Amino acid sequence: MRIGIMGGGQLARMMALAGHPLGLEFVFIDPAPDACARSLGEHKVIDWSAADLVSQLAGCDRVTFDFENVPAQSLETLAAHFDVRPSPKALEISQDRLAEKELCASLGIPVAPFQSVDSRPDLMAAMDGLGLPALLKTRRLGYDGKGQYRLVQAEDLEPAWQRLGEQALILEGWVDFDHECALTAVRDANGTVLFYPLTHTLHREGILRFALSGSPANVPWQKDAQEVVTQLMERLDYVGCLTVEFFVTAEGLVVNELAPRVHNSAHWTIEGAVCSQFENHLRALTDLPLGATRARGCALMINFIGQMPIKDMLALDGLSWHDYGKQARAGRKVGHATWLLDDFESLKDRVGELVAYLDPIDAQGLTGLIKAAG
Amino acid sequence: MRIGIMGGGQLARMMALAGHPLGLEFVFIDPAPDACARSLGEHKVIDWSAADLVSQLAGCDRVTFDFENVPAQSLETLAAHFDVRPSPKALEISQDRLAEKELCASLGIPVAPFQSVDSRPDLMAAMDGLGLPALLKTRRLGYDGKGQYRLVQAEDLEPAWQRLGEQALILEGWVDFDHECALTAVRDANGTVLFYPLTHTLHREGILRFALSGSPANVPWQKDAQEVVTQLMERLDYVGCLTVEFFVTAEGLVVNELAPRVHNSAHWTIEGAVCSQFENHLRALTDLPLGATRARGCALMINFIGQMPIKDMLALDGLSWHDYGKQARAGRKVGHATWLLDDFESLKDRVGELVAYLDPIDAQGLTGLIKAAG
Repeated sequence: MRIGIMGGGQLARMMALAGHPLGLEFVFIDPAPDACARSLGEHKVIDWSAADLVSQLAGCDRVTFDFENVPAQSLETLAAHFDVRPSPKALEISQDRLAEKELCASLGIPVAPFQSVDSRPDLMAAMDGLGLPALLKTRRLGYDGKGQYRLVQAEDLEPAWQRLGEQALILEGWVDFDHECALTAVRDANGTVLFYPLTHTLHREGILRFALSGSPANVPWQKDAQEVVTQLMERLDYVGCLTVEFFVTAEGLVVNELAPRVHNSAHWTIEGAVCSQFENHLRALTDLPLGATRARGCALMINFIGQMPIKDMLALDGLSWHDYGKQARAGRKVGHATWLLDDFESLKDRVGELVAYLDPIDAQGLTGLIKAAG
Repeated sequence: MRIGIMGGGQLARMMALAGHPLGLEFVFIDPAPDACARSLGEHKVIDWSAADLVSQLAGCDRVTFDFENVPAQSLETLAAHFDVRPSPKALEISQDRLAEKELCASLGIPVAPFQSVDSRPDLMAAMDGLGLPALLKTRRLGYDGKGQYRLVQAEDLEPAWQRLGEQALILEGWVDFDHECALTAVRDANGTVLFYPLTHTLHREGILRFALSGSPANVPWQKDAQEVVTQLMERLDYVGCLTVEFFVTAEGLVVNELAPRVHNSAHWTIEGAVCSQFENHLRALTDLPLGATRARGCALMINFIGQMPIKDMLALDGLSWHDYGKQARAGRKVGHATWLLDDFESLKDRVGELVAYLDPIDAQGLTGLIKAAG
């Protein structure tokens, strides 16, 4: 079988690494000549809205995507010729923060309070209604903290409007959370759903830094999170992996956002789960039996941002390396490592070994994460 | 870093799958246009003795090989321009059954009794000396049971000579063994050696069918096997993975043969060990710290010979699939699956679930293996 992927970044790359052993072949659509999945399949260096997209993907048995900002129109066009999974509808909703929140609200799923903002008066009214601090975000095309402005006082309105005001916006009320977590689930075309254990996540400057499976702090939230994800998957008639990011608050889980694809917070599943998110996404796409999602231990993932560190960290027993083969660039996700240990207690005992390799900011972040986890 | 591999078969393919996450890129030298590693790097469709081999591999930081029958002269030539690991010397010895046995004998390592055979009189003398049954083998270019003839009675001499007599031969005395096993070890350029647990192997018609890690029957032999492999690696100043296949006899371990590369009997390490043989081979080649070789449980590998079975076996919890993307052909290794369980007891309890998917001959083989294992 041949899988077409809109996007040729690290998620497409890791899908291909998981897919070749299943006997799958890949075509990547990505206008970047150096797209990092290029060496693992056929790379079409064309735009995602190219007029000949259908013919470029000729021969593909399934089409999927590795990022949210694929033009929904392109995916609709493709859906007339290919079996596109997850469906364009799921993508469209996740492309629009307002639609995403309205979907959750319609299902009774808690989200941050929000107001649609299309004008200065809208923004003033929303600030009055939701209070400060609040987050002004573009409805579309935001990722890794991009397209956001934090409003702390009334005077922030004007610079925020100058920065973002030309786009459709949403103002989100502040959510006071204890920590963040994410649930990844996979659903096949028959409606079978399997859940990975909740991942404890830590972001800095809007970018995921650490992801921890097996965090004792998350155990009480597994069931609630599964209920939320089940509702969303059923409503969207979803096929493939879906990740939902949550705030853990005193009042319970609050949905932050949805990612209708494989997701950075579940990279630990490559080593840390019986069957990885990448393989399960492909199993769901190609109608194979889903693989078991249970953890093989306690896994800690650390993202490498900007540039890859030197490889001496590989001396850590149980550490796996994932260099995406990308050029170094500030703020760019260029790789990650996963450290798999028997259980959280082992991680607590040994975390100093990893901290020794980290810069002071990451070292502090990791220490805080372990403390928050239990 | 860029790795040149002489050969583009499934071993090269699995090396590349393990190597991309380490940030490595690959060039495969293989005259077969459909070499199954081709989609995971640059494929040069040229002969292994091509005159322009050095320029075709230009830019490679290391050169290795995925099968024994690479012309030793080519590797010697390459070694003048590239860092070839393991060394051409290790390859040359493993290419010649006589040299291999003489090396072992010189180190005091038990091997089957043997005689070099270059003529009919040699063969008659060897049959007299070693007794029958015995195995007549080509000294070179044998694999998967090819180039062998089993001599049971004096009358077999003539047909055996007709079949194989044009090549340099070796006659091996019969070894009465309880079962077969294999040890894979990895050695880095500093001389650090790590050993995987012994693998219990089962062959049929000269081809490996099943490989089992965590076999209780092998535990008593781990130390002896490690001593043999250490001696060989030190003598050969070996860098990379080496597998030694053993007969387990009433008198102890007897070396059957050496494979100076990653090896089929250790495919289970992809899921079943902390760091796989493929990754460790590459770590040794590129001077990275070696990864831990301990098992993550009890792993059973089953080879798919001739054609891939249908994929319903993927419903087994903990089973991983490895389709090499090769055309079906009788006797050809086209893929394997690995079933990873917590321990041997779990495997014994659940083996019926796997047996249900097998044809009667494999089912019988597997049942026998589990019984022999403990």
